[in-house]
Amino acid sequence: MKKILVANRGEIALRVMRSARELGILTVAVFSEADRTMPFVQFADEAICIGPAPSSQSYLIGDKIIAVAKQTGADAIHPGYGFLSENAGFADAVTKAGITFIGPSAASIETMGSKLAAKQAAQKFDVPMVPGTETPLKDLNEAKEVVKRTGFPILVKASAGGGGKGMRVVEHEKDLEEQIRLAKSEALSAFGDDAVFIEKYVAAPRHIEIQILGDQHGNYVYLFERECSIQRRHQKLIEEAPSSILTPAIRAAMGQKAVDVAKACNYYGAGTVEFLVDEQLNFYFLEMNTRLQVEHPVTEMITGLDLVKLQIAIARGEKLPFSQEDLKINGHAIELRICAEDPANNFLPDTGSLNTYIRPDGYGVRVDDGYEAGMDIPIFYDPMIAKLIAWGQDREEARKRLIRAIQEYRVEGIKTTLPFGEWALQQAPFITGQFDTGFIGKYFKAGALDNNDPMEATVAALLAVQAWEEVDPLKIPEKKATNWINRQEMRKQ
Amino acid sequence: MKKILVANRGEIALRVMRSARELGILTVAVFSEADRTMPFVQFADEAICIGPAPSSQSYLIGDKIIAVAKQTGADAIHPGYGFLSENAGFADAVTKAGITFIGPSAASIETMGSKLAAKQAAQKFDVPMVPGTETPLKDLNEAKEVVKRTGFPILVKASAGGGGKGMRVVEHEKDLEEQIRLAKSEALSAFGDDAVFIEKYVAAPRHIEIQILGDQHGNYVYLFERECSIQRRHQKLIEEAPSSILTPAIRAAMGQKAVDVAKACNYYGAGTVEFLVDEQLNFYFLEMNTRLQVEHPVTEMITGLDLVKLQIAIARGEKLPFSQEDLKINGHAIELRICAEDPANNFLPDTGSLNTYIRPDGYGVRVDDGYEAGMDIPIFYDPMIAKLIAWGQDREEARKRLIRAIQEYRVEGIKTTLPFGEWALQQAPFITGQFDTGFIGKYFKAGALDNNDPMEATVAALLAVQAWEEVDPLKIPEKKATNWINRQEMRKQ
Repeated sequence: MKKILVANRGEIALRVMRSARELGILTVAVFSEADRTMPFVQFADEAICIGPAPSSQSYLIGDKIIAVAKQTGADAIHPGYGFLSENAGFADAVTKAGITFIGPSAASIETMGSKLAAKQAAQKFDVPMVPGTETPLKDLNEAKEVVKRTGFPILVKASAGGGGKGMRVVEHEKDLEEQIRLAKSEALSAFGDDAVFIEKYVAAPRHIEIQILGDQHGNYVYLFERECSIQRRHQKLIEEAPSSILTPAIRAAMGQKAVDVAKACNYYGAGTVEFLVDEQLNFYFLEMNTRLQVEHPVTEMITGLDLVKLQIAIARGEKLPFSQEDLKINGHAIELRICAEDPANNFLPDTGSLNTYIRPDGYGVRVDDGYEAGMDIPIFYDPMIAKLIAWGQDREEARKRLIRAIQEYRVEGIKTTLPFGEWALQQAPFITGQFDTGFIGKYFKAGALDNNDPMEATVAALLAVQAWEEVDPLKIPEKKATNWINRQEMRKQ
Repeated sequence: MKKILVANRGEIALRVMRSARELGILTVAVFSEADRTMPFVQFADEAICIGPAPSSQSYLIGDKIIAVAKQTGADAIHPGYGFLSENAGFADAVTKAGITFIGPSAASIETMGSKLAAKQAAQKFDVPMVPGTETPLKDLNEAKEVVKRTGFPILVKASAGGGGKGMRVVEHEKDLEEQIRLAKSEALSAFGDDAVFIEKYVAAPRHIEIQILGDQHGNYVYLFERECSIQRRHQKLIEEAPSSILTPAIRAAMGQKAVDVAKACNYYGAGTVEFLVDEQLNFYFLEMNTRLQVEHPVTEMITGLDLVKLQIAIARGEKLPFSQEDLKINGHAIELRICAEDPANNFLPDTGSLNTYIRPDGYGVRVDDGYEAGMDIPIFYDPMIAKLIAWGQDREEARKRLIRAIQEYRVEGIKTTLPFGEWALQQAPFITGQFDTGFIGKYFKAGALDNNDPMEATVAALLAVQAWEEVDPLKIPEKKATNWINRQEMRKQ
């Protein structure tokens, strides 16, 4: 493998290229007209524009991307996450074009891409599942029969779904028919497939996922878990590894079941098996993501492994260079997704320019991002602009380091999830690890970020400057009275 | 300990404050008029200007710094490195003012501050030393007697010396008298003390140092070694941990002897015991630095420990939270000092503005720096602007990651040691680990960086753009033809 085309953009494209370069492999970027000046385009050894900004006219056109791979002599394609990464047809077309797809086989992607097919495959290995239907729901009568077994509340879920689309909670039998109808209609319009199924609704669940690796020779390992319960709109915002609630025995059991799921679809490459975990630490298979996850860095930080390099090695046909017994958890890592969103306004996407953009740094701090100061955030893509990850010897060191790094991050010109992160990491449920996927709904109330109010901070800052002047005849730095002291006063409140 | 004044500037001030903040301790910056806008001033909870730019009028005035500590209610002072960090009088005055000095006792600093007193103390523990005099040289006759024992070549060294000042190599007896006279005169003018002594000159030595920690209860550990042989003008440029040549047995022996040196002066805090290592892996005690070293991050990266937090814990009177058996080496780390110097012009200091300044990031990369884009590099201080550190699972991964990070670092407006680092890391002696303190003199010849010639790269870049246009009707990014492709072409050469 001499040249990898990265069929993605932003932070993940840059992240993949960094590992490729460390391996001495050349890189090709493909980019939309909106992304021309982005760091991943600048970083690549070659870069080709593949069309206008909307993904449907650039990042989602598999044929064009394969054509660029051929033209540039790329012998492999890394799909990143999102876009074509879990598109079995694309994986198949890449392989048929004689190019290595850095990911699992098209067949594995296809099996795991259908929630029902995935469940059927996993069942062979006795992987625990939330009680419900194993085939698409035929009619209301079947639904009523199933509910007799599971009890209310239940979830109606789209078989082809993801990201919460086509998903409805039903608490009473009287709503069942209507909610199934709505779920089917939502599923049809979102995924072109109206198949839905029923699952028992697990109250106060945690979302905990297991990172697995498999090679093309039948060897598998699990790289422990990621706790991803802090979500808004069913999308993760804060992830950590390891989880603060798993015991070594449950960790090993979940790891083994995750490997079983991978075996069930003859998986190779890096993959993630997602579980719901209830309050009694029972765990239920949710789905498998057949690609690199956004939150993979927390696993890298606690294992010392570079997951992209391992994906490449597996795609090259190499054997896993370690076995399960060689793997140990080293410390703790927490990631905050920095999205161009206004947390005080229901996390609505924000757009604008990164007028100021200065990343934090120092020991244990990692930023994976895709922008530089002065750039616009395009409206066409996911609002995530960066991932901020802190490692520590233990959870408390990682948590405090992440707070320090958040306070050090300077983003002006656009609203981000940074203030939310600073708030969330300091809440008692987070500190004690006693939280579930309802964290934001339960605790993040209107006004939670209000003591970050700029006016209040300015007044406090001016008072503080006066106090210093009284005690100290030496000069006060000018900057104190303007920008920075505000943040410092905020922190003290 | 509630508030720490950091009696330093630049990257080390920021680095200390980051750890303090993670511990929930407030910070006070003291700064010169030249440093008003620097990140460490902005980061601090309070910041006080202590005078004009020259260190002698600000960072070296201990009394003023202690007065600021009292005024701001700081209950501890961290001296960083350089400036007052190894000034026993300052440590003593801080302690007498009722403020905790985050460092060893004044007595330890004083003992280790004199090379001869240090040798005498270390001798009690049978620490191996380079053969030579143990007391200041009385006269030429004594020198001739000593040389009969050691043989030529010898080093004449200032007792109070450091950084190569007052140090002369003598290869023949006929030069002895003249070189002693010159060394004494240089020592007198540099250190106000003309005492010199003689040491056998070790050919092709390596500079390997051991990081130690001692608490105030008599407990000691060593945190393994740092290989610091790549130097210019006796000052380190590239450091790594662990060394690629030490065996576990020699590592343990050096570690034990380093702890003995610390015991010999009742040391507590973080300290570094420097050794010369010859081609047969014999090691000789050189000196002890009674402070945090510039290169401490490589030790942090392979041990997972935060040395500043440990300094603070020790200063608070806490016991070391681990014993020697708990400590393991995890992977490999390499640091490049990024100095405002022109490597192609004998590493002469360069001045100017950081017109472009974008740090690399991503897995395993750490930057400790003290500047931001747009800032001037003041001429008053050490030319080091940043330290770039890469960690890897093994030496080769760390090396390739560091090269990747160097290539990603974008500094315009000032010449730096980045191109030297990129060159050095790719030389066969570095790759194989077969180098000594003569590395730069032996291998870094005029023109070594010449294939980074901008004109040549531009031509290559234009040719490359043409080639792409022929094979590919899709658009070529504009940037390729200007800035970035140059670097990419350079890399391929």
